[in-house]
Amino acid sequence: MKHLLLLIALSGSLCFVQAQDTVIKEDFKPSTKNQPQQEYPQVNSQGYARFKIIAPAADSVRVSLGLGGQGGTKLLKAEDGSWMGTTAGPMDEGFHYYNINIDGGKFNDPGALNYYGSTRWESGIEIPAHDQDFYALKDVPHGHVQQVLFPSPSTQTSRRAFVYTPPGYYENPSLRYPVLYLQHGWGEDETAWSNQGHANLIMDNMIAEGKTKPFIIVMTYGMTNEVRMGGMRNFKIEPFQTVLINELIPYVDSKFRTIADQQHRAMGGLSMGGMETKTITLGNPDVFSHYALLSGGTYAPDDVNANKSKIKLIFLSAGSKERPDGVRNAAAALKEAGFNAVSYVSEGTGHEFQTWRRSLRELAPLLFKE
Amino acid sequence: MKHLLLLIALSGSLCFVQAQDTVIKEDFKPSTKNQPQQEYPQVNSQGYARFKIIAPAADSVRVSLGLGGQGGTKLLKAEDGSWMGTTAGPMDEGFHYYNINIDGGKFNDPGALNYYGSTRWESGIEIPAHDQDFYALKDVPHGHVQQVLFPSPSTQTSRRAFVYTPPGYYENPSLRYPVLYLQHGWGEDETAWSNQGHANLIMDNMIAEGKTKPFIIVMTYGMTNEVRMGGMRNFKIEPFQTVLINELIPYVDSKFRTIADQQHRAMGGLSMGGMETKTITLGNPDVFSHYALLSGGTYAPDDVNANKSKIKLIFLSAGSKERPDGVRNAAAALKEAGFNAVSYVSEGTGHEFQTWRRSLRELAPLLFKE
Repeated sequence: MKHLLLLIALSGSLCFVQAQDTVIKEDFKPSTKNQPQQEYPQVNSQGYARFKIIAPAADSVRVSLGLGGQGGTKLLKAEDGSWMGTTAGPMDEGFHYYNINIDGGKFNDPGALNYYGSTRWESGIEIPAHDQDFYALKDVPHGHVQQVLFPSPSTQTSRRAFVYTPPGYYENPSLRYPVLYLQHGWGEDETAWSNQGHANLIMDNMIAEGKTKPFIIVMTYGMTNEVRMGGMRNFKIEPFQTVLINELIPYVDSKFRTIADQQHRAMGGLSMGGMETKTITLGNPDVFSHYALLSGGTYAPDDVNANKSKIKLIFLSAGSKERPDGVRNAAAALKEAGFNAVSYVSEGTGHEFQTWRRSLRELAPLLFKE
Repeated sequence: MKHLLLLIALSGSLCFVQAQDTVIKEDFKPSTKNQPQQEYPQVNSQGYARFKIIAPAADSVRVSLGLGGQGGTKLLKAEDGSWMGTTAGPMDEGFHYYNINIDGGKFNDPGALNYYGSTRWESGIEIPAHDQDFYALKDVPHGHVQQVLFPSPSTQTSRRAFVYTPPGYYENPSLRYPVLYLQHGWGEDETAWSNQGHANLIMDNMIAEGKTKPFIIVMTYGMTNEVRMGGMRNFKIEPFQTVLINELIPYVDSKFRTIADQQHRAMGGLSMGGMETKTITLGNPDVFSHYALLSGGTYAPDDVNANKSKIKLIFLSAGSKERPDGVRNAAAALKEAGFNAVSYVSEGTGHEFQTWRRSLRELAPLLFKE
């Protein structure tokens, strides 16, 4: 079926090829997250993705992306021995993880760059987004993303974190900066917000446009992946809480020009990182003053009433496809209870990185307003 | 044959299993460059590597590593549907790139981390080395590795570089540091010296032991991969030379506390990065004062006589398996001509990263001696 689809689309004729009544536009271009010089995978302006895999003697090749209920996208063998196919429908805007099943084994697409998610280095693909400009690489002053190795006696090793220092950090050695501690989700690691999220580029662009004050962002591994996806009730916050509060924050405050007090320290996280944020902020009201849960739960007034005077912002976001009334209602209840609470819903996306890139874009201007 | 080898090795009996007369020690452990929680690939104390790939319906699975002339290591299907095999002989100490051929297609090993080489993100494996301590992650003060995006009008984009700032950089804001510009080889990119080379850990450890003065290392993409491996005669140095001299050096000197003069600026590179180093240093004698070619060619006295007073060090290294007399003889001739020339030969390695890790270890203490 898909082979037929490809032939019809290539011939340029207008016809109804799917129950969806959509003509697939043949404006496919290599995904911006391909390896250098790799033509495939490709994406078009409507959000379709097209794959090409070389495995001449394979019996079956399937891509994990595509209409969920249909088990991904089955590729068909072309005359030259390559396997090709196009998703049956368009995908949500933004970044997606995927992998390839070849004869029953899971492998990555050699055409794509790799991104850590679902506890493995997956392939990644970027679907064009109408608002993609806000995370584009532009000719503006850029911050630095610093890989640091901080001592962690509690885990008996040096642990890695990435620290974004904003443009101007080096030119203004007398300035000190507030800090956002920003966590990834289950299955991910400390590279997620930079590689998948483009947090540094989002910040660079907003700072250049004067949309946010500059601040430091710290991104470390939230120790999320020891539990399996369905095993959240077994998750214990104490090990990561110890690393964060006792080891990482002191390290950052000693090596970077931070404003090292509660009023100038924020914590946020996506998905399971939001769950961690909620637990840690509630357990440490003298450490953080700005709280952000991105597709990561909500606070109720009862959770936070005891510390109202210390909490400057509660930010709750979700994609429009993941029951957004949860965050809207929670923010309304918090506002009613006297908190500076904001909800944000990303239109047309679900539990995925475009929701979280946009959430950071909405969150940043709200942080650290005196 | 290899299946038999595995059975015999596992049974622990002493016997001659190969023409090599070597008993394979069953002390295999997961490679230190595996993805989190992945058991395979594994390596033993003798340098053998063992692989396990899940691809139940595949017809053939082959690993690109193993005795060169034998075309890698063919895996055999075990009862549980996994494919397994062990290299026919031991491998050189240190880091190796590899990939997996499944039914005629090239893919990565899902158990291994990825490293950029041969113009693709390859799988990587680490063979234990008798001297591996010098690049180990230790409980010493660590430098930061900063990802920077510097403006490059000549290539109409912002380009990436990684800048290693040594431990103490933040604690001593009045100190300024010399700089080593360190290039990768053909097929690699700006991540090579950090990810494959562990340059930051080598420096952290030597600084902790007082074996080298601290300095900054800058690692950017040398624009090597537009030419194919055999197409060196088509390579033009001018684009990269322009990026390095006109764009990157000024950026580094403006954002970091460098000692921004010729006497405190070094350039080095491995393989094709050495070729670039030779060309650029000879063409810009007022920019660099310390030159290092790592498995990357040599200088003759005639190349450098005109600028003798400006050149403080010429360092030439090679692996013992890659005609090391070249660097020994060249250094001797340079010394005879009055230069501070040093050669270093890495024992038991060839054109591979262990040679270059060791070369950096030998080079660093020689740099920037007043």
